[in-house]
Amino acid sequence: MTSTPLGPVDGTQVPRFAGSATFARIPRIDEVSRFDVAVLGAPFDGGVSYRPGARFGPAAIRQASRHLRPAYNPAQDVAPYAVLQAVDAGDVPCNPFDIDHALQQIDDHVAELVRAGGRPLLLGGDHTIALGALRAVAREHGPVALIHFDAHLDTWNSYFGADRTHGTVFRRAHEEGLLVQDASSHVGIRGPLYSAQDLADDATFGFEIVSARDVDRIGLEEIVDGVRRRTNDAPVYLSIDIDVLDPAFAPGTGTPEMGGLTSRELLALVRALPPDQIVAADLVEVSPPYDHAEITSLAAATLGYEITSLMARAGGAS
Amino acid sequence: MTSTPLGPVDGTQVPRFAGSATFARIPRIDEVSRFDVAVLGAPFDGGVSYRPGARFGPAAIRQASRHLRPAYNPAQDVAPYAVLQAVDAGDVPCNPFDIDHALQQIDDHVAELVRAGGRPLLLGGDHTIALGALRAVAREHGPVALIHFDAHLDTWNSYFGADRTHGTVFRRAHEEGLLVQDASSHVGIRGPLYSAQDLADDATFGFEIVSARDVDRIGLEEIVDGVRRRTNDAPVYLSIDIDVLDPAFAPGTGTPEMGGLTSRELLALVRALPPDQIVAADLVEVSPPYDHAEITSLAAATLGYEITSLMARAGGAS
Amino acid sequence: MTSTPLGPVDGTQVPRFAGSATFARIPRIDEVSRFDVAVLGAPFDGGVSYRPGARFGPAAIRQASRHLRPAYNPAQDVAPYAVLQAVDAGDVPCNPFDIDHALQQIDDHVAELVRAGGRPLLLGGDHTIALGALRAVAREHGPVALIHFDAHLDTWNSYFGADRTHGTVFRRAHEEGLLVQDASSHVGIRGPLYSAQDLADDATFGFEIVSARDVDRIGLEEIVDGVRRRTNDAPVYLSIDIDVLDPAFAPGTGTPEMGGLTSRELLALVRALPPDQIVAADLVEVSPPYDHAEITSLAAATLGYEITSLMARAGGAS
Amino acid sequence: MTSTPLGPVDGTQVPRFAGSATFARIPRIDEVSRFDVAVLGAPFDGGVSYRPGARFGPAAIRQASRHLRPAYNPAQDVAPYAVLQAVDAGDVPCNPFDIDHALQQIDDHVAELVRAGGRPLLLGGDHTIALGALRAVAREHGPVALIHFDAHLDTWNSYFGADRTHGTVFRRAHEEGLLVQDASSHVGIRGPLYSAQDLADDATFGFEIVSARDVDRIGLEEIVDGVRRRTNDAPVYLSIDIDVLDPAFAPGTGTPEMGGLTSRELLALVRALPPDQIVAADLVEVSPPYDHAEITSLAAATLGYEITSLMARAGGAS
Amino acid sequence: MTSTPLGPVDGTQVPRFAGSATFARIPRIDEVSRFDVAVLGAPFDGGVSYRPGARFGPAAIRQASRHLRPAYNPAQDVAPYAVLQAVDAGDVPCNPFDIDHALQQIDDHVAELVRAGGRPLLLGGDHTIALGALRAVAREHGPVALIHFDAHLDTWNSYFGADRTHGTVFRRAHEEGLLVQDASSHVGIRGPLYSAQDLADDATFGFEIVSARDVDRIGLEEIVDGVRRRTNDAPVYLSIDIDVLDPAFAPGTGTPEMGGLTSRELLALVRALPPDQIVAADLVEVSPPYDHAEITSLAAATLGYEITSLMARAGGAS
Amino acid sequence: MTSTPLGPVDGTQVPRFAGSATFARIPRIDEVSRFDVAVLGAPFDGGVSYRPGARFGPAAIRQASRHLRPAYNPAQDVAPYAVLQAVDAGDVPCNPFDIDHALQQIDDHVAELVRAGGRPLLLGGDHTIALGALRAVAREHGPVALIHFDAHLDTWNSYFGADRTHGTVFRRAHEEGLLVQDASSHVGIRGPLYSAQDLADDATFGFEIVSARDVDRIGLEEIVDGVRRRTNDAPVYLSIDIDVLDPAFAPGTGTPEMGGLTSRELLALVRALPPDQIVAADLVEVSPPYDHAEITSLAAATLGYEITSLMARAGGAS
Repeated sequence: MTSTPLGPVDGTQVPRFAGSATFARIPRIDEVSRFDVAVLGAPFDGGVSYRPGARFGPAAIRQASRHLRPAYNPAQDVAPYAVLQAVDAGDVPCNPFDIDHALQQIDDHVAELVRAGGRPLLLGGDHTIALGALRAVAREHGPVALIHFDAHLDTWNSYFGADRTHGTVFRRAHEEGLLVQDASSHVGIRGPLYSAQDLADDATFGFEIVSARDVDRIGLEEIVDGVRRRTNDAPVYLSIDIDVLDPAFAPGTGTPEMGGLTSRELLALVRALPPDQIVAADLVEVSPPYDHAEITSLAAATLGYEITSLMARAGGAS
Repeated sequence: MTSTPLGPVDGTQVPRFAGSATFARIPRIDEVSRFDVAVLGAPFDGGVSYRPGARFGPAAIRQASRHLRPAYNPAQDVAPYAVLQAVDAGDVPCNPFDIDHALQQIDDHVAELVRAGGRPLLLGGDHTIALGALRAVAREHGPVALIHFDAHLDTWNSYFGADRTHGTVFRRAHEEGLLVQDASSHVGIRGPLYSAQDLADDATFGFEIVSARDVDRIGLEEIVDGVRRRTNDAPVYLSIDIDVLDPAFAPGTGTPEMGGLTSRELLALVRALPPDQIVAADLVEVSPPYDHAEITSLAAATLGYEITSLMARAGGAS
Repeated sequence: MTSTPLGPVDGTQVPRFAGSATFARIPRIDEVSRFDVAVLGAPFDGGVSYRPGARFGPAAIRQASRHLRPAYNPAQDVAPYAVLQAVDAGDVPCNPFDIDHALQQIDDHVAELVRAGGRPLLLGGDHTIALGALRAVAREHGPVALIHFDAHLDTWNSYFGADRTHGTVFRRAHEEGLLVQDASSHVGIRGPLYSAQDLADDATFGFEIVSARDVDRIGLEEIVDGVRRRTNDAPVYLSIDIDVLDPAFAPGTGTPEMGGLTSRELLALVRALPPDQIVAADLVEVSPPYDHAEITSLAAATLGYEITSLMARAGGAS
Repeated sequence: MTSTPLGPVDGTQVPRFAGSATFARIPRIDEVSRFDVAVLGAPFDGGVSYRPGARFGPAAIRQASRHLRPAYNPAQDVAPYAVLQAVDAGDVPCNPFDIDHALQQIDDHVAELVRAGGRPLLLGGDHTIALGALRAVAREHGPVALIHFDAHLDTWNSYFGADRTHGTVFRRAHEEGLLVQDASSHVGIRGPLYSAQDLADDATFGFEIVSARDVDRIGLEEIVDGVRRRTNDAPVYLSIDIDVLDPAFAPGTGTPEMGGLTSRELLALVRALPPDQIVAADLVEVSPPYDHAEITSLAAATLGYEITSLMARAGGAS
Repeated sequence: MTSTPLGPVDGTQVPRFAGSATFARIPRIDEVSRFDVAVLGAPFDGGVSYRPGARFGPAAIRQASRHLRPAYNPAQDVAPYAVLQAVDAGDVPCNPFDIDHALQQIDDHVAELVRAGGRPLLLGGDHTIALGALRAVAREHGPVALIHFDAHLDTWNSYFGADRTHGTVFRRAHEEGLLVQDASSHVGIRGPLYSAQDLADDATFGFEIVSARDVDRIGLEEIVDGVRRRTNDAPVYLSIDIDVLDPAFAPGTGTPEMGGLTSRELLALVRALPPDQIVAADLVEVSPPYDHAEITSLAAATLGYEITSLMARAGGAS
Repeated sequence: MTSTPLGPVDGTQVPRFAGSATFARIPRIDEVSRFDVAVLGAPFDGGVSYRPGARFGPAAIRQASRHLRPAYNPAQDVAPYAVLQAVDAGDVPCNPFDIDHALQQIDDHVAELVRAGGRPLLLGGDHTIALGALRAVAREHGPVALIHFDAHLDTWNSYFGADRTHGTVFRRAHEEGLLVQDASSHVGIRGPLYSAQDLADDATFGFEIVSARDVDRIGLEEIVDGVRRRTNDAPVYLSIDIDVLDPAFAPGTGTPEMGGLTSRELLALVRALPPDQIVAADLVEVSPPYDHAEITSLAAATLGYEITSLMARAGGAS
């Protein structure tokens, strides 16, 4: 039996700019006895190769999520927080000086949420954090299909001797057996590469690439159909690097690339993903020092809301 | 008999960054004896539910309008200020602490312009100001069809006991009989809602909704055709909330929503509106503290120029 | 018997940019059974006469307070949160459209804290909020001496028919009998006035003015001595408008005035106030949309820390 | 017989953020029949050697002057716009591509104001504009004593073959006989030089240098006494380059120099200048693209207000 | 025989934010004995009609080019700096006070590069600089076809008596016989004009106009086909004014116009240009003071990379 | 015999905004055969505890150093780059993911400069880099006296298990025997601490603390006298954390603290240091993402110029 979820603070009783600082003003994890979805901050940017600042991402996304009026999502026709119990699980106290320690901390926190039956939504932090989450999720669910929105492949091998950074996590995930072979996709890829070999390597690891330019050539519907088919009904880990958006839509990020998706395109793609398969998700690479007027953190907050709406369409816990 | 209009300051004689601070550097209302179009500032933001600042909108839009070289509009093939006499009527001295008083002040100022035979173009200010303008316009012209570009419906009922705010004005306009039944449209709607009932209510008030996503699904031409047909030749009040644009194009606004229109789409839609029907217009919700490099206020200034160009295609006063 | 206070989150265990979003990462009010000091947000800016935005002040000050390492304050030689139990009491859900309703809400919330034996520290919000707090405080403690740091007197009579705004609150407080006669001081006053009569009126209400320029002419020590003597041992309400600082030190405010105090001067003045007399305090007029790199909100957070340190020097509750 | 001056727009009737866009909301020159002081914009930055943008200075200073409540200046104990008739004379339409043409345009406009009996206050623009003003003023009044607040001497000889730039104007003024020999002072000088010879040359031209560091060593009062004595009762042209302030107080300028004056120091110096001698003044080098939260343009607006207050203490026209 | 080019600094050995400050971290011109492509800064903004600042363009574009990982360009399937020897030739020391002198300096520097067999890529600076480059290029190659991406025609006649400014260069180029008749195109044109005659004049000079709106009506492929056909196999000078992009994508520019191209559209157009015909190129009108988070300078840097990739597809020197 | 130094690029021949991107436009190290002073970038911010971004410090300080006209320093009466041969030695390619590796790289690069007889001036980067430099310097010169300007002690023990971070370097330096016992000073200290024990520990390590507030109580001259006396003629390592300045003067830093020094105070202190003793120096913690209008990086550039001027007063190499 499921109790009625405890919903967000009511924006008609408490102005949105006041009160609770949780994501979308949903309850804290300690305010409920069970939950279906848990938002978890991972304020870590020790794995970035260019502009840092994503350590302030979770706080900025939560602040921007005040903009939302979360009761009803007409685009997905769902009242997400009436259907499932969503909670804000706070932040992982990531060690800023030790990547592997931080990954272990993230793994531990995500594992705890997953074991409690919740689907985690991580707020990064840089993309390195995805590896910690994937480890915990795959232990529970087995290997997953990755649906990865990003300007970059993130399957390089290493930087300056560091094997686990924001540009190498999905090669590591593949090597660690966390991904279902040939079920994963990158969407929004663009920009120059260290080498042509990068593309060949990536294919070997079982990914398919949908470039930003493919949005014009193939169209949104066919892209999503392909991505969905490719998952082959495996459990899905959804990872959205905010730099999949063009820098005009997401200036507040560390490695922006010209020629990205528009926010309307990204919303259309995300809303068309398979609700029933998503077991975990992350939103990464929001770097508030480079943002303006909250447009990047608002995009991330909105995407977080759409992801939880997707999860709600799949239904709450039994 | 119509005299030749007194045009804007000539940008080849006085640099655009110098001289007159009126909209598009057109004459002040006291410099001419009659006018066809009057630009009127309504610096009021006492009705906002989230980020304030729109009280500085009129000054910022006028400053940004210096960018314009207003003599000839090739997109509409018209020299607007050679055809009609446009003037800047200054600002309504809106009471910042009393919404109803401010609405009355706006009503009075607009009424005076309308009685003098001019079509008013209001520069907001938050969307609350539209109610004052609609009251004055409807007294002169009878009920109007509203063509409303916005991310939000603005037909909620009340906030915190306040019935006239930037989110409720069009429900009030409907209730006050200012709108022709079933003739109005919202274009660009998106984002989560307080309740699914909001959509049902809105339909009851006689509006049709064109969502931002519909731009992809339906196309610009068909959207405009539908909006025009729906007006059924009634006089049109055109209201453009700058947040109809995506935050990338208009960061300087109070309640930005991800996934909006591009500026090219909005220009195409506005230029296709019916010139002969527009009796009044407003441009609202530019919040300069959140703008960058004038991109939002420049968008508003350009839209104001396009609206006066539309009006010019309908001809000046007889 | 006093239990050991529950202190802030330990910055050596949880990075300061992670975890709790309370002021200085102290406990929430619901996490303890009693408290000596309560930080209370009052996100309201409906009373401003120029640049709004202070409704986002509480959230910004809390975020900036992450910079603090609050364990030990060497300038005052006190470990404030080891001596007294400080809590974050959240925000008053101020009605953004009704000044008097918002004042009543603030009054109610402050009254509850005061009745529980705590000294309140309000985070504004615009200066209007002080009137709500003063009413609650004076009901409990009787009339108070006001020590008021500000560029402006805030004893004007009314604006546009509104009697309770950020520029009139202390005239109202005087009229309502909330202030001990001839015990209050304004410090940091500067800038032009609506009329020379403003000064005469202010004196009638029993205030003494220390101008910003007096800091050079009189010196910090003598200023503080005068302010302290003038309180005549009455309970003190401390009110700091961040615009007492020069705009270089506090750009993020609504009515900046050139020629203000430096941050070092203000800290020296605040640290020299009488610890035992302060029964309540506020920090107002931080307007985040105008801030840069958090310098204004960091100044406010630091002042809040210094104020609680002062209170700690007076000792916790018995 | 003097008529009562027409004063600024009343801030209790029209909110300061609304209505007139003139300096301090004083009347336009065409609204009165005579005037004592005329504010004149000179939007020209073709003479800058580093960061441009001062062409937008007049518009930004006027916008920032909305902050002022200009009725009564307690620091100088004068109601300036009740004593003298101040007007805003608009902008000189400076040729942006021809320095000498622009100087001639400025000369012509200033000459007209001076001949009408008004004291001009120019809003720059870069410092080049001072040469045009000095020529017009000296034709009417004879050579003047220059009181010059600046980080830089502005007595270099030429840059890249250009003899009249923002760094050379006062050498040219000396050579053209516009300055009383040995009556002029530079205050606030600092920063590295092209050559040690610069100082020797400057002394030859009859200037005395007060460095920024001298404020600490000599004190404000003695500095002003020296500057005043040195004028030897000659008519004074007051020129304030906003970069005399430290970049913390005036980031919005083209050639900032670390280690400048504080705004409180500059105000104290300006207020102590000899009211009866000032025949003209300029405020230059505000570059709005580099400003933040209007702090630089607000400083300039306040200084403009203080200068007109000084002029008012000398009395209006007879 | 061609030696192996000396490539950029390796981003896996030296972090991209460290080391060489040349464009894309390619070698300086003095580090190699020959070159195929030379990047040349032209830091000049003395020809602008509205917002200045482009003098800082070359430094900002070089800094933003650190973002690039230049080894391999998958969109064009080329490793540009392995195929051709690209160098950074530093900056032309443009006279900031004399347009014609600056044009001569640019002409001289470009001529030297062209004589050495290199294809120049100029980084502006305002659009005026294109005239200097065109003169040098046409002396070597004869008249060229201009492919011109811009919001504006830049074929006006003169401003304020100045014949060579950023709005008149291509009329001058036509008059000086630098352009092949009827072979040139403007792409991305939009915004109001000084006069309808501007369009007629432009056609007389032999240009064809592709408006921003034509991107929707005609499509990218057909546009590029038309532009290519029109060149009639003549040598091409490619000129990209960054304001061809919408202000959302390129806020950091002097005369932004609403309704521009998206960055994805511009990239698609540029990548489809004829590699073998391009003999020189420029990237102009990046004004860093108006940029945010480097998005404009990053767009320019990426376009510079794409242009050199195009050149590489045509092959290096023989 | 010393050859005449090769000086900076002449600002009267090449505009300061053009050409060489070295510090103060001095020669690159490979352009001369010997040098007295070498500026070395250390773009590393892997040791920060709060806001990152200092990895972009060296590039920003060099860009800001274009503001300087470096020929003659009147405040120190020296033409530094005519007296000594100063060079820009580029950047250390610091490993962003491994603090100890980065420290070793810095040590190696500094050692090479020191062995060549040059005095190094490091541009950080966060304060961690000082440890690498101190190791190299002490190997050559023996233990040094540290003159340390900072808001913070930087003698904490460890954070999150990391022993070498920006808050612990001087405890490590003490432990490694790099500092002369009881010869070092911290100047500008302020802000709360993790514990009162921090002060006791610091004294044990042989430091003396001069707080920011001491500037008012003791005065600049006496402070410098004390600091100089305390060095006891030992070789001095000068370390300036830009956060010694108040956030108003240096917003672009990672751990700003309210109540700091003014830029005029800091310049006066630095200029009074003992020229003959300084063997090496660093300027750290400039974080460009948080800067505005270059005011922080300009302060750092100016301080770098003053430090090299100090070194020049001590004379060039023999």
